[in-house]
Amino acid sequence: MSTPFDRLGPDLVTTDPEVVASFARDEAALGVAGGAGPLAVLSPRSTADVAAALAIAHEHRVPVVVRGAGSGLSGAAAAPDGSVVLSTRRLARVLEVDPVERLAVVQPGVVTGDLRAAAAEVGLFYPPDPGSVAFSTVGGNVATNAGGMCCVKYGVTGDFVLALEVVLADGTVTRTGRRTAKGVAGYDLTSLLVGSEGTLGVITEITVRLLPAPGPASTLVATFPSLGAAAAAVAAVTRAGLDLSMLEVMDRTTLDAVDRLTGMGLGADGTPAAMLLAQSDTADAARALEAMAALCRDAGAEDVVLADDAVEGEALLEARRQALPALERLGDWILDDVCVPRGRVVELLEGIERVAAAQALTIGVFGHAGDGNMHPTIVHDASDPASVAAAGRAFEAITALALDLGGTITGEHGVGRLKRDWLARELDPGAMAMSRAVKAALDPRGILNPGCVLEP
Amino acid sequence: MSTPFDRLGPDLVTTDPEVVASFARDEAALGVAGGAGPLAVLSPRSTADVAAALAIAHEHRVPVVVRGAGSGLSGAAAAPDGSVVLSTRRLARVLEVDPVERLAVVQPGVVTGDLRAAAAEVGLFYPPDPGSVAFSTVGGNVATNAGGMCCVKYGVTGDFVLALEVVLADGTVTRTGRRTAKGVAGYDLTSLLVGSEGTLGVITEITVRLLPAPGPASTLVATFPSLGAAAAAVAAVTRAGLDLSMLEVMDRTTLDAVDRLTGMGLGADGTPAAMLLAQSDTADAARALEAMAALCRDAGAEDVVLADDAVEGEALLEARRQALPALERLGDWILDDVCVPRGRVVELLEGIERVAAAQALTIGVFGHAGDGNMHPTIVHDASDPASVAAAGRAFEAITALALDLGGTITGEHGVGRLKRDWLARELDPGAMAMSRAVKAALDPRGILNPGCVLEP
Repeated sequence: MSTPFDRLGPDLVTTDPEVVASFARDEAALGVAGGAGPLAVLSPRSTADVAAALAIAHEHRVPVVVRGAGSGLSGAAAAPDGSVVLSTRRLARVLEVDPVERLAVVQPGVVTGDLRAAAAEVGLFYPPDPGSVAFSTVGGNVATNAGGMCCVKYGVTGDFVLALEVVLADGTVTRTGRRTAKGVAGYDLTSLLVGSEGTLGVITEITVRLLPAPGPASTLVATFPSLGAAAAAVAAVTRAGLDLSMLEVMDRTTLDAVDRLTGMGLGADGTPAAMLLAQSDTADAARALEAMAALCRDAGAEDVVLADDAVEGEALLEARRQALPALERLGDWILDDVCVPRGRVVELLEGIERVAAAQALTIGVFGHAGDGNMHPTIVHDASDPASVAAAGRAFEAITALALDLGGTITGEHGVGRLKRDWLARELDPGAMAMSRAVKAALDPRGILNPGCVLEP
Repeated sequence: MSTPFDRLGPDLVTTDPEVVASFARDEAALGVAGGAGPLAVLSPRSTADVAAALAIAHEHRVPVVVRGAGSGLSGAAAAPDGSVVLSTRRLARVLEVDPVERLAVVQPGVVTGDLRAAAAEVGLFYPPDPGSVAFSTVGGNVATNAGGMCCVKYGVTGDFVLALEVVLADGTVTRTGRRTAKGVAGYDLTSLLVGSEGTLGVITEITVRLLPAPGPASTLVATFPSLGAAAAAVAAVTRAGLDLSMLEVMDRTTLDAVDRLTGMGLGADGTPAAMLLAQSDTADAARALEAMAALCRDAGAEDVVLADDAVEGEALLEARRQALPALERLGDWILDDVCVPRGRVVELLEGIERVAAAQALTIGVFGHAGDGNMHPTIVHDASDPASVAAAGRAFEAITALALDLGGTITGEHGVGRLKRDWLARELDPGAMAMSRAVKAALDPRGILNPGCVLEP
């Protein structure tokens, strides 16, 4: 089939139906794709190629969906029928790592783990570590403002983005931000683009700030007889202001699933109701974790294990890293991503238990306890319409509960297509109008990922 | 004189010509005001008052200039002829300090130092500390994305803003952001408003995140025989990744001025060419500063003084706090605010010396060495047209030099009216077009601080 993009040449354009069809969805599991699928997949080799592609798309009003690894969990990279997919797979070079200015410049297709490794080679640290760190791309992380386990101490991806090169809807190439440590010249267009999920521009180069590499982390794992006890420990740790670089939680359902997958023996004396996993990477990490251990015991912890050794620490964290793979083994799954005020996490977890009981579904919960950012994972049977409907009701009930608790519909995965209709339940009419005005101003023809974040 | 704002009632509206005239300028010293001055000063008592004022301004297309303490240094609060000034002086309550969620909610007119004190009362820490911390307001700090001495470790004001209540150009009241630790629901409208200098909306409530209070800081002061030696020490400290919460510099001109003002005896053996002042507030602060002391001596430091004691440390910092007041005593002054990559600071300082010599002016330099953010202060005689012209040429040359070095025209003071014509020298045409499109989308009638940041 011929498309207006053919003039970019066969090296850049794929229209093979089988290849193209595979781009109609990403890792979002709720039905957000279908139909004839995208027209073509473009694989530009340069910013100039991206600009040429956008100019054609703009002229012909063809929707453009940018795609990195396709590992997003909200359908932002699920390409609608009639769109073109703009893959960043060939824009995958680390262009610069500057130890004096403590920054790196990368193309969007660089895998996040590779950027972390490049920084580590010169003794520096790129903190963002989404669960997908080994395969997701920096461009995708920036587009969704991805989080991870580091956030409790280091913040999210956007906190590290200094500057962007971006191709605007009409093909104009521009730069936002700066290479200096500070700067307030004009509007913060960089932050506006971060997390905009491909709807305001196509990011073609990213400058991130780096930190001095921290010391080796110490690790703590504690098990609790109830979710409430674990939450009380989290609250005590937060009140004490301990300097933790990680503070994660898993519930019994998740622990059981991990045990089944790995045979770790987490439930030797019966699986605990909850496990907290924490790290500290400061100079007095051991003291911080000793203090946390005491607070955990005060809150009723059953077992508390401390590890100063990095290898032993990694082994303790393995259970957390296997949380999602383990839950995926239980059946089909919908991964939710809600964040509530830290003080309301117990109410969220108790509410999720009620939802699971009401819908007769297994819902495992794990997440970033230090941030109040939880990932309830709804296990169901996609071949059974009744189970799918129950899963949908559970997803609805959990996301609504997060809002009722003063939280947000998405802590780190983004709105995408999965939660587009939820946005107006979180934002008030004024903020919705502002969002639509900004979108219309920067993408007047509506070609950039239409239907993602906002109604098309 | 009657105005369309009279319907707000005499309690909220001042048209007394003498009072109103005093609002035609802020602390920006380059001639940016003049003429008939603003029409009226409005002093709303509530968000609803602000909304009512904006609705009238929108209907009658009257420019609105928001003003906190009026301590801005870039003319953002210098109200043009025919505008109304919207003072935040009555919107000055700390509404909430929540130790569990580690956040505070304040009205924009709260003095920044008062917010810091309110946080400290519950053992928490609001880091932003612009030089004006004792009298500038949180609203003004947010509107300019103010910096300070904390930035080398903690970042700028915007890094602490979680949520805003804002009144849009037409009087619509809305909220952006969230109270949770993380959240990616929709565009980052909060960051777009931070630093927008009153041109996109009127901020009526600010939610900031707080940190656990750090331990008492240790302090180091070192003097150097040359600017190059001081800069080499800064580079070595940066490479070593020492955890410093402050890293400031003052040049000989500034030190001489401080000595004259305070009689501190900084120049007992001849004033040094440069002084570095550093603090660390981590658990191993003493070790970090011992390491810094060694690096300073390696770089050729003359004297290195360390203080673990907070009172002694404050005494050591007094010289830095007196830098601007001391330079102000030398005559009329223009304070510049440029930021360059850390590795280019020496070139900037040497260039400023050449500019001072070429224009036969005294230019004192102090600033945030750890960020590359310098405040060259051009002393001149405002009653002598030749001196004013020379000062203007020096300002031009220094700001242009910062751009040539890969820096920015403003590190923390903002564009305001002072540097409006510089913005297009820093941003490329695409970013300028994006900025204008955003402005037009959110303020279609152009009533919000017209002529600030962008051309009216």
